[in-house]
Amino acid sequence: MAYYDYKIAGPSPPPALSDRLRLYHVEMNPYGHRVMLILEAKRAKYEVYHLNPLKLPTWFRDKNPRLKIPVLEIPTEHGDRYLFESVIICDYLDEKYAANSLHSREPYVKAQDRLIVERFNELIKGSLECFDTNFAFGSEQIVQTLEILEKELAFRGTNYFSGSRPGMLDYMIWPWVERLYLLRCISEKKFEQKKALFPNFSDWGDQMQLDRVVKKLAHSPAEYFDYYKNASTHTMGYYI
Amino acid sequence: MAYYDYKIAGPSPPPALSDRLRLYHVEMNPYGHRVMLILEAKRAKYEVYHLNPLKLPTWFRDKNPRLKIPVLEIPTEHGDRYLFESVIICDYLDEKYAANSLHSREPYVKAQDRLIVERFNELIKGSLECFDTNFAFGSEQIVQTLEILEKELAFRGTNYFSGSRPGMLDYMIWPWVERLYLLRCISEKKFEQKKALFPNFSDWGDQMQLDRVVKKLAHSPAEYFDYYKNASTHTMGYYI
Repeated sequence: MAYYDYKIAGPSPPPALSDRLRLYHVEMNPYGHRVMLILEAKRAKYEVYHLNPLKLPTWFRDKNPRLKIPVLEIPTEHGDRYLFESVIICDYLDEKYAANSLHSREPYVKAQDRLIVERFNELIKGSLECFDTNFAFGSEQIVQTLEILEKELAFRGTNYFSGSRPGMLDYMIWPWVERLYLLRCISEKKFEQKKALFPNFSDWGDQMQLDRVVKKLAHSPAEYFDYYKNASTHTMGYYI
Repeated sequence: MAYYDYKIAGPSPPPALSDRLRLYHVEMNPYGHRVMLILEAKRAKYEVYHLNPLKLPTWFRDKNPRLKIPVLEIPTEHGDRYLFESVIICDYLDEKYAANSLHSREPYVKAQDRLIVERFNELIKGSLECFDTNFAFGSEQIVQTLEILEKELAFRGTNYFSGSRPGMLDYMIWPWVERLYLLRCISEKKFEQKKALFPNFSDWGDQMQLDRVVKKLAHSPAEYFDYYKNASTHTMGYYI
């Protein structure tokens, strides 16, 4: 299902890093999707190892006792190190590859964007699990989240949250929005009705889908529908 | 009880900002303490308004419907704006007053420090409420937190988490550690026994207490003891 190159994390740890970063990722995981968007936006050199969250290798458990996923492995002067938490990993990448900054260089705007991401993180907790039992339109959590984002886009009056091109805030929320399009597979009509309630946000979503970085990592609504339909046999508990 | 100058937030909103920042603070609140430490470390020009969390003025509720405390009010080109979440406020201040950076300029170290603060935030949730019912030595939460910090200091081999002087991580955890010294008021002997279990951390605490910024905002163990003894009559629910 993945269009990017990847390796499977096996019983032996991968070799030490030399010229690239390494992402440990669970396929279809939106938090790992976040990190890949930033790696691509930064044109970083990286490789992806897929993990089966139900069969995590011992070496991975040893290096990551709290079993956080995704993990970015990076070379440091003290050897390779693990970095956790998608938002912190992405901020790290934005600072490490400082050209073409994805965060605003204006501290107040950056702080506002971080607040929106934190609020978003709170609101979406468990929102994908909604897909698990039924594909309800307009679950309260999702509507509340979309209302906040619609209002914010209208207030900013820009094509993207970050201005005239996608920035950190755009990419941080995108993985969940891309998955929302799966509702098309249930009822195109209902989907369009809901979409009309959030005109700015809908335009934003349409534009995001044309972005080079977004396109490179995109899955279709049908793929997501298929995936979440069988979610109970997957690994919902690992969306961390 | 406060040694700093402050005003009381009354029924009318304070005047628009001109030459300084404004912090809305609940007295003795450790999250507000965090922000004040950074304001002082940065030698920012600011004023403090005390709020009574049980009687929040209407104008404050209107501007801050989620009732977040502390709040930093800052002048922007679009007028005065509120900024929330102690960690985000402190990171904002570190970027706005960029000279004398409190975060490491090495992105990986900064990311590690942010991870430790996030872990700390999770662990301490509700830890001060322990003081509410009994002043237990070695509640599991507190011991687990101290073990992580002790190990980290030993690993770093530096006087402060941030090296040879206090930095962002040091100040982010300090308000809770300063309050921990109130255990002295219950049993000096038990306190010293516990302290001996965390030698690096104890040395760090002793040194932090000599820091200019820490000293300026410090309360004594007796003051904290007195405060938390009566905590149920205070505003424990507002430690957000």
